[in-house]
Amino acid sequence: MVEPAWDPYDRNCPTRKLLDRIGDRWTVLVVGSLSGGPLRFSEVAQRVDGVSQKMLTQTLRGLERDGLVTRTLYPQIPPRVDYELTDAGKTLREPLRALEEWAKAHMNAVLDARQLNDSNMR
Amino acid sequence: MVEPAWDPYDRNCPTRKLLDRIGDRWTVLVVGSLSGGPLRFSEVAQRVDGVSQKMLTQTLRGLERDGLVTRTLYPQIPPRVDYELTDAGKTLREPLRALEEWAKAHMNAVLDARQLNDSNMR
Repeated sequence: MVEPAWDPYDRNCPTRKLLDRIGDRWTVLVVGSLSGGPLRFSEVAQRVDGVSQKMLTQTLRGLERDGLVTRTLYPQIPPRVDYELTDAGKTLREPLRALEEWAKAHMNAVLDARQLNDSNMR
Repeated sequence: MVEPAWDPYDRNCPTRKLLDRIGDRWTVLVVGSLSGGPLRFSEVAQRVDGVSQKMLTQTLRGLERDGLVTRTLYPQIPPRVDYELTDAGKTLREPLRALEEWAKAHMNAVLDARQLNDSNMR
């Protein structure tokens, strides 16, 4: 079978939607939270300050469906559910951490540029 | 002045919105297109297959406002406008290329995982 040449510059390539998924702020923060090891739902929710239950559920389900996160149910009372990066999910840690680091390193410069540009437009 | 500790895990930190901006599919593809050097609007539009004029304008304006892209007008007939990454914009090339490469490298595995998970859910 010929391997298709994935190309997000092509409007029909599924990598374009995958880019949306992995570049999404919630994905960046959820994968970042899970980078240190498995966490329960409530622990992820606590780290990703302000994420709604609905959005966190949706993000984790999407990552699970894409094979990037596993969900493990421990049948105890009360039941415990852990989320953990798969091996494929772990390969996302570095590129997403780089995004996070970029944002932190350039926030001041971006704010300065906005101020300058907004005052020039007046 | 004390440097604020930027932290996208904090819901009020502006880095969270900046993450949205830089992880956006159009930003990834526009910055990727400009990675080789300045381009005209129409050239960017051609490389980023399927991007609407409105979305491309909005993406370029956002990047310009944030100090990541410059817009240069050459007063000739017809007037020519070039877009180019600034030095700060160039620092985005690597992290965004890493995202793009990740998407291409993992597309097959993600499609397989989806197929498996969707059939298990039936």
